[in-house]
Amino acid sequence: MSAAFSLEEAVPVLARTPLVLRTLLDGLPDPWISATEGEGTWSPFDVIGHLIHGERTDWIPRAEHILREGESVPFAPFDRFAMFEASRGRTLAELLDTFAELRAANLRRLGTLVTSSTDLGRRGRHPELGRVTLGQHLSTWVAHDLSHISQIVRVMARRYTAAVGPWREYLPLLGRA
Amino acid sequence: MSAAFSLEEAVPVLARTPLVLRTLLDGLPDPWISATEGEGTWSPFDVIGHLIHGERTDWIPRAEHILREGESVPFAPFDRFAMFEASRGRTLAELLDTFAELRAANLRRLGTLVTSSTDLGRRGRHPELGRVTLGQHLSTWVAHDLSHISQIVRVMARRYTAAVGPWREYLPLLGRA
Repeated sequence: MSAAFSLEEAVPVLARTPLVLRTLLDGLPDPWISATEGEGTWSPFDVIGHLIHGERTDWIPRAEHILREGESVPFAPFDRFAMFEASRGRTLAELLDTFAELRAANLRRLGTLVTSSTDLGRRGRHPELGRVTLGQHLSTWVAHDLSHISQIVRVMARRYTAAVGPWREYLPLLGRA
Repeated sequence: MSAAFSLEEAVPVLARTPLVLRTLLDGLPDPWISATEGEGTWSPFDVIGHLIHGERTDWIPRAEHILREGESVPFAPFDRFAMFEASRGRTLAELLDTFAELRAANLRRLGTLVTSSTDLGRRGRHPELGRVTLGQHLSTWVAHDLSHISQIVRVMARRYTAAVGPWREYLPLLGRA
């Protein structure tokens, strides 16, 4: 059920994501890591690159932007495709390390940046969505992590959409036949 | 993209699930653990109980049933509600321990039970779905794990459906407004 954002509840989730993804993916046979849902969709490997790009350009940079600029200057748009170039030639293990380092540093930065719950009402301007608050932005950080964990396990599960045979009917994650 | 089931690829996924769930959930503030999507839906705590019940009554018992009975005797139906009683009074940490122990034992048993890929074509009879194969059953074990990881992160993310404000539009996991 719906809840208000709180730093005390959110930070433990954000802190766990890198190790959750490492535990889920590191050392798995490559077909799980490079699987996609078809042309133009992302593999687990791609998703880790996307999360890295978010650590570099979205979550803390936009939080700083809100606190510095308020609504006067919209955020720079987020590049949803930057990771294809940035991840090229790197191993999954390297990407997982990078993500973990960036996330840890960003949570340390968050701790100095947002020191009171009144900061959560500070406003910024999203280039497409318009007025947003810092609390909404930080809530989105959490929901975005969880969404991409969900995406990764969905992509993996769908490798077995045909293999499960008639059980597909009981597994909505695999999509309707 | 769709793939054939293979033990070599499936076992590493099955083996990781208990630690993935422990990493994701153990020690989180309770509102994440007890969250549901409303009346009659399951919390992360409930899901771990359901996975335990599957280890006890579904995956290995039904694999043994297929190898012993073939199509002559249908499986006993799976109880989707057994965990509400079985989990009562237990802590999440206890459930995570139990799940990890049962899963490890079941994967050891799987290694002695299914020794060749020709076993994967052995047939059984599901009480509702009819004829199934051992390979389909084991594929379902994997997809079922991944489905419930997906469910847990969805339930968690939806705590912030309102809190993300206008970003909901970019987060299909939260459901349409």
